[in-house]
Amino acid sequence: MFQNEQQTKNKTEDQKVTIDKNIDFWKWFLWILQEARIVDTNYSVKGSYVWLDWGYKLFKKIYAFAQEAYIQSGHNQMQFPTLIKESTFLKETDFIRNFENDVFWVDREGSKKLAKGERLALRPTSELIIYPMFARWIRSWRDMPLKVFQNVSIFRCETNETRPLIRNRETIGFIEGHSAFQSKKEALAFLESIGKTYSILFEKLGIPVKFIEVPKWDQFAGSTKTIDGYVILPGSKSMELFTTAYLGTTFSKIFNIEYLDQHKKKQFVHLLCYGPSIDRILATIIAYYGDNKGLVLLPDISPIDMIIIPIFNRKNKSIIMQYSNEIKKQLISFGFKVEIDDNELTTPGMKFYQSEKLGIPLRIEIGQKELANNEITITRRDTLQKETLNWQSQSIQAHI
Amino acid sequence: MFQNEQQTKNKTEDQKVTIDKNIDFWKWFLWILQEARIVDTNYSVKGSYVWLDWGYKLFKKIYAFAQEAYIQSGHNQMQFPTLIKESTFLKETDFIRNFENDVFWVDREGSKKLAKGERLALRPTSELIIYPMFARWIRSWRDMPLKVFQNVSIFRCETNETRPLIRNRETIGFIEGHSAFQSKKEALAFLESIGKTYSILFEKLGIPVKFIEVPKWDQFAGSTKTIDGYVILPGSKSMELFTTAYLGTTFSKIFNIEYLDQHKKKQFVHLLCYGPSIDRILATIIAYYGDNKGLVLLPDISPIDMIIIPIFNRKNKSIIMQYSNEIKKQLISFGFKVEIDDNELTTPGMKFYQSEKLGIPLRIEIGQKELANNEITITRRDTLQKETLNWQSQSIQAHI
Repeated sequence: MFQNEQQTKNKTEDQKVTIDKNIDFWKWFLWILQEARIVDTNYSVKGSYVWLDWGYKLFKKIYAFAQEAYIQSGHNQMQFPTLIKESTFLKETDFIRNFENDVFWVDREGSKKLAKGERLALRPTSELIIYPMFARWIRSWRDMPLKVFQNVSIFRCETNETRPLIRNRETIGFIEGHSAFQSKKEALAFLESIGKTYSILFEKLGIPVKFIEVPKWDQFAGSTKTIDGYVILPGSKSMELFTTAYLGTTFSKIFNIEYLDQHKKKQFVHLLCYGPSIDRILATIIAYYGDNKGLVLLPDISPIDMIIIPIFNRKNKSIIMQYSNEIKKQLISFGFKVEIDDNELTTPGMKFYQSEKLGIPLRIEIGQKELANNEITITRRDTLQKETLNWQSQSIQAHI
Repeated sequence: MFQNEQQTKNKTEDQKVTIDKNIDFWKWFLWILQEARIVDTNYSVKGSYVWLDWGYKLFKKIYAFAQEAYIQSGHNQMQFPTLIKESTFLKETDFIRNFENDVFWVDREGSKKLAKGERLALRPTSELIIYPMFARWIRSWRDMPLKVFQNVSIFRCETNETRPLIRNRETIGFIEGHSAFQSKKEALAFLESIGKTYSILFEKLGIPVKFIEVPKWDQFAGSTKTIDGYVILPGSKSMELFTTAYLGTTFSKIFNIEYLDQHKKKQFVHLLCYGPSIDRILATIIAYYGDNKGLVLLPDISPIDMIIIPIFNRKNKSIIMQYSNEIKKQLISFGFKVEIDDNELTTPGMKFYQSEKLGIPLRIEIGQKELANNEITITRRDTLQKETLNWQSQSIQAHI
């Protein structure tokens, strides 16, 4: 995480130029994505981004929360393929009409041109991939509820105005849940419980979400009841964070997902699909909590709780490093995730900037004064308040 | 994991037909993939498979080992896009010659035909994606070594004879490491340490790997030294499990990955790429340890250590369930991962079959006899040996 020091060095000049979140939000957003090592937006394919080390760590933290929620609510994790045959697409005319301008089409395998019907689409979403498998797996009422989820990349070339994390052409953090039920009643009850699960998740992440039932004309193709979660970003633009849709029996009829009920009668299954995009959840966390110095991370989200920055000269280096390592060891024994930034190529000042940009909740400075008085100096990232504490482990633990 | 009982029921007839690993390995392999819920091979796009619940759990276990090895050896985890512009491909003629028959080409975005040079390839591997970014990130010797890895799907339409997990068209478990060094010497030293890391990993997984230096004419395009790891599958076919390649400065020259050395002189960086495919690691574990009853999993790989199967009638049900739950609780307190198969729709016999197919290391039966004598009956999956033990927690723990 502390690589590319030279780049950091080259950029210290820029840091004096304040990019103001309240004046130009998008400029600030792009600045923070790069400086906090979230994504690199300079990849050569439009709407595709490189997830950098810090961004990917945040991705994994958010993903772990979402994964846990899915598993706790009885889902099996699976993974479905990326490519969809054109002939499958042609079975569902509403769906293809909805997505026809959004799809990347593979027309060639090597030098071989694919024939009509055999051409392959990159999934814009996975209904057409998952539901034909449901038709294979579901035979009787005993096979339900069937609940699966997956985390995959999805591809949509819908827009020219791409925005990293928010409007991508490849979105890596799509978490799709799909489930099948015997009746509309059961399906809607589960939809409601999924909504509650999300509410708890977003509360934990500190994101204020509004649930809105989507009017019929704006619904996902094949849906009969859709409730979406929205946030309002700075600049008053609303953004969809996740969707939950009751699909009724629309897809069951297209793909023949039938089951024998308790009276041996054939019935169509009732389907739900739902899911957030981690990309957008992270964008929201950045937009809500970040400031002109960088990210501000809640302790639940931050990959580490605190960073120790030792301040030494040639004479006191070894003793300060020793003291820092002792403190690190004790803090770890209390259960905190702690790192020392002992990079020799950067100055303490640059390390302060860096830890503020990354949004690490607490920064601990240890220099000659701290060493002499058996103290540590702690700065909170959210309030930027500084405090010097006597290093008595018990009281520190209570304080932190 | 115990869903689709009806399917299981429908198939009990088939179970009597023995599919013999030693007589027809490939028939057995396909049988086990489906029966142990690893992948479903019935997806409509050739060479693409659906990862089922048990298979995906095994995938995550193996992935966790590999991820840890990468992180311990100083790699940053990132994620790079799927699509590559044709114009990038055209910069590297050797590379494109190597892969020209293997690439899925996106020729259309929606209804819009893409022009020559703008067409997009699905990554067959990520050199052309990652190295142009390295060129942006590396400025001076201070930026190295730069070590990154990612876990992504890769796409290759090279063969018509696809084999699930072994010769796919989409491989979901590709773990690519890429790193940049100042000199050949440093690069080769790291290549060697990566080799050692893999040896340890494969030993842990119980896989006998042979390292072989690949002759020049068979090397990956752009490589100047390649050491691959092979296993011999039943039927004496050898399979490449992973590759480690020293790429020299071939790609550095194509993508201008230069740095200023300690004497402010411009130099090209030296590149390494390496990685296993989890799909093939899992295939090897299945092929090596599986038998005619199903998977056999080493405790390190199995998502759970033991499964408790209660055997009851209407009269003793509640007391047997109570005893089983007590035992589960205690085993969990010893640190084991334990589940009870309390599904009411299947018989104990079907549960035995199921636990053997899944390869769970230990099966615990608890019936009237066990209850009466304060015992449990344990069957090891690898030897199929059965043993009845007195339930005295301390001694049990020592025994297991």
